[in-house]
Amino acid sequence: MLSLDVRPIFYVIGALLSVLAMAMAMPLVADLAAGADDWRVFAVSSALTLFFGVLLMLTNRTERIALSLRQTFILTTASWVVVCFFAALPFMFSEQSLSVADAYFEAMSGLTTTGASAYATVSVLPPGLLLWRSLLVWLGGIGIVGMGIVILPFLRVGGMQLFRSESSDKSDKVVPRAADMALGFGWVYLALTFICIVSLRFAGMPMFDAINHSMTALGTGGFSTQDTSIGFYQNPAVEWVLILFMFLGSLPFVRYISLVRGDYGSLWRDSQIRTYMIFTVIVSLGLALYLMVMGQLSPGEAIRHSFFNCVSIITTTGFASLDYLQWGPGPIALFFILTLVGGCTGSTSGGIKMFRFEILWLALRTQVNRLFSPNRVLPLTYNGKPVDADVIISVMSFTFVYIALILIFAVLLGMTGLDYTHAISAAATALGNVGPGLGGMIGPVGNYEPLQDGAVWVMSVAMLLGRLELFTVLVLLSPSFWRR
Amino acid sequence: MLSLDVRPIFYVIGALLSVLAMAMAMPLVADLAAGADDWRVFAVSSALTLFFGVLLMLTNRTERIALSLRQTFILTTASWVVVCFFAALPFMFSEQSLSVADAYFEAMSGLTTTGASAYATVSVLPPGLLLWRSLLVWLGGIGIVGMGIVILPFLRVGGMQLFRSESSDKSDKVVPRAADMALGFGWVYLALTFICIVSLRFAGMPMFDAINHSMTALGTGGFSTQDTSIGFYQNPAVEWVLILFMFLGSLPFVRYISLVRGDYGSLWRDSQIRTYMIFTVIVSLGLALYLMVMGQLSPGEAIRHSFFNCVSIITTTGFASLDYLQWGPGPIALFFILTLVGGCTGSTSGGIKMFRFEILWLALRTQVNRLFSPNRVLPLTYNGKPVDADVIISVMSFTFVYIALILIFAVLLGMTGLDYTHAISAAATALGNVGPGLGGMIGPVGNYEPLQDGAVWVMSVAMLLGRLELFTVLVLLSPSFWRR
Repeated sequence: MLSLDVRPIFYVIGALLSVLAMAMAMPLVADLAAGADDWRVFAVSSALTLFFGVLLMLTNRTERIALSLRQTFILTTASWVVVCFFAALPFMFSEQSLSVADAYFEAMSGLTTTGASAYATVSVLPPGLLLWRSLLVWLGGIGIVGMGIVILPFLRVGGMQLFRSESSDKSDKVVPRAADMALGFGWVYLALTFICIVSLRFAGMPMFDAINHSMTALGTGGFSTQDTSIGFYQNPAVEWVLILFMFLGSLPFVRYISLVRGDYGSLWRDSQIRTYMIFTVIVSLGLALYLMVMGQLSPGEAIRHSFFNCVSIITTTGFASLDYLQWGPGPIALFFILTLVGGCTGSTSGGIKMFRFEILWLALRTQVNRLFSPNRVLPLTYNGKPVDADVIISVMSFTFVYIALILIFAVLLGMTGLDYTHAISAAATALGNVGPGLGGMIGPVGNYEPLQDGAVWVMSVAMLLGRLELFTVLVLLSPSFWRR
Repeated sequence: MLSLDVRPIFYVIGALLSVLAMAMAMPLVADLAAGADDWRVFAVSSALTLFFGVLLMLTNRTERIALSLRQTFILTTASWVVVCFFAALPFMFSEQSLSVADAYFEAMSGLTTTGASAYATVSVLPPGLLLWRSLLVWLGGIGIVGMGIVILPFLRVGGMQLFRSESSDKSDKVVPRAADMALGFGWVYLALTFICIVSLRFAGMPMFDAINHSMTALGTGGFSTQDTSIGFYQNPAVEWVLILFMFLGSLPFVRYISLVRGDYGSLWRDSQIRTYMIFTVIVSLGLALYLMVMGQLSPGEAIRHSFFNCVSIITTTGFASLDYLQWGPGPIALFFILTLVGGCTGSTSGGIKMFRFEILWLALRTQVNRLFSPNRVLPLTYNGKPVDADVIISVMSFTFVYIALILIFAVLLGMTGLDYTHAISAAATALGNVGPGLGGMIGPVGNYEPLQDGAVWVMSVAMLLGRLELFTVLVLLSPSFWRR
């Protein structure tokens, strides 16, 4: 058995819980302002969370937080599991209370920026709960940006070592640097959110809705304050604003720092962003053309709805401007594939992510060329950096395990009674942190309320695995992780 | 543009056509013996094939056949494409004539040992045609065994370099060695076929049927002389005999040479065979248990039908003892997964193949372990041989392209009007050279007659790609293959 100092792990979790407790003040204030009784729910939840947070911090104080590789793996998974539990408290305590399984699902869906909801109707919820859902997405979003830039490259999961910077090799600084970076990106994130709120207001969205949708657009989480999502507003200006900000949420946040520093070409020089933009535009235009040719929508509407829903799924946000499942089997198959793709790494979005497809394509092309000219050595480079066999195997392993997990989760969901389409699309949408599935029940205008508790737990695990790039969680299942 | 000596390519194709022409004598004799007029079909087909075969051989005679790597790639694909065309002649000329698309499909399905049929009913066909179908499977089977042992390891496609022997590196001997080896395995194959015929006779199958089913069992092709496949006989003894011989057809044929030499432990020492046997038994027993618990079949019948149909699909044969699509969504999902698995390399069966899953598993386990102990270097070995990064990337690339091609072919098939289940399962079953799909129309008791010409051509291409381990064909699509 591994002897492990758990104190720094508990300490960091305590710190995260304290932040969560403070965040609960926002919905508390919102409920008070609206005169909703639900403010008590947040007061109790906040107090409980703060109590445990401070308790963990006080009892596990150490000189300095220097984490080993194993401790970092355990901390990463454990912190999400524990924080989600406390984040779920308001959903359990509220008058519109959810079961433990559903509440945990809702919190996990928020913090992983998935945006799948266990509520059958959200329009009846008190403002505090609505704001809490959006806030979870927003906080999860900035958390995952920090993790994707600082912790995951250090853990070398799924080819993320490509994004190591020189300083990320110094293990003793992982946690403080993560905090530093998150703060840096925090300002960018906050500024973008603010601009989004203002733009949505100008486009005609009420203030409260604008705040909520701005947070869930940039967090690419997709929780809405309306049961029919963005379709409720029937407002093209709102949709175009959200298209822009969902897309901004799915770009690597490090590039914004370059932009702020005045390096305007940095976005286009990044191969991942270039491919991602071209892909998004081609897919959206292609679908729009298809919808026009099939006579389903007028040219203007086809462009607007195609862009909105494609961008929503590619960025793994999950807003919907209408029920695109009505577009027939071709577009449904397309949306399934888009569910797998995902945005850029180092952003708030999920999925397999664009850089992995680029690495896969590079590796395959090299493979094919080497078959008929075995003596030519082709050094593989990506974004100007050399790509060694280790990175290729990492990326390929990631993609395999991703596909295998979709099948495994689909089988588990199938065993709770879901049919093929529901099971497979629910598994894919959870693992990709996207949100809407492709079966009618869990589709863009549906929700996850009808699912059994067992299915909901499976979905929570899938969302967690997807968010932490699979291997961060999977290493914990390896017996040799716990040995020596 | 590549300057390429095409003479050796044409010469070898000519030789193959001459063999094919001679093989047509068998159904010719069968028709004559049965007094069926169809013998003329084979006389004409054989004459035509022989004419072109000899013509190609005479006009392209070279001193000695020494093939470069590129020539070998071109030869491999070109020979299958051309041979299938001539093998399709009897299906076009017969009174029960098929369209060009269907006839080519039937020939490709036979030679690739797939066993999917474009005939709506086969029981009405003259004996010559029935025998021709079985013979194509049988010839294709021994052809692919020879290729899998001699040519493909030399071409290094999809990790096959693992099976290179020292002498397979000498490129100038590829073709003669392939012929030599095929002859060696030919005797084993012939002996096994003979034993199978005798066993089936003893089990009570009529002589003509026994000959046909023996050829298609060992070739793991699955063409039957009955419309309801093996279910027609309702004979457990027949089924157990076929279970044994389908399984023997899916084992690496090199091991039989070791067995003949008296090394009885060689089968069990081969990691691929061990894993494959354990997998087959566990899956078949598991399904049998499920069928018993669900009360669908009595214990005896459950064991028998589960083993028969699981072995039939795992070995990529495609016989059916009943319509297992009636067993419900769980078993159908299982059969879809089994469609992907495939037998052992160096056998007559298709699919992804067991050794690739072993390599994938090894690579993934190493990946996970290296995440938390990055400094430990674990040398990967498989069957006592070292496995380098190149093999791992090869195997992973193969599996990816395999999955991607299923999706691409499914989309193409979907565009001809097939629904999801039909399109995806038809793509998977063609690429895996299995035979039956999972939609009712193309299922174990169905056939491919209702498919449009476009769909049938797509299926033919998919069968060819699957049979030639994908990359052998795909390299030809790379522009740089044709350059310099």
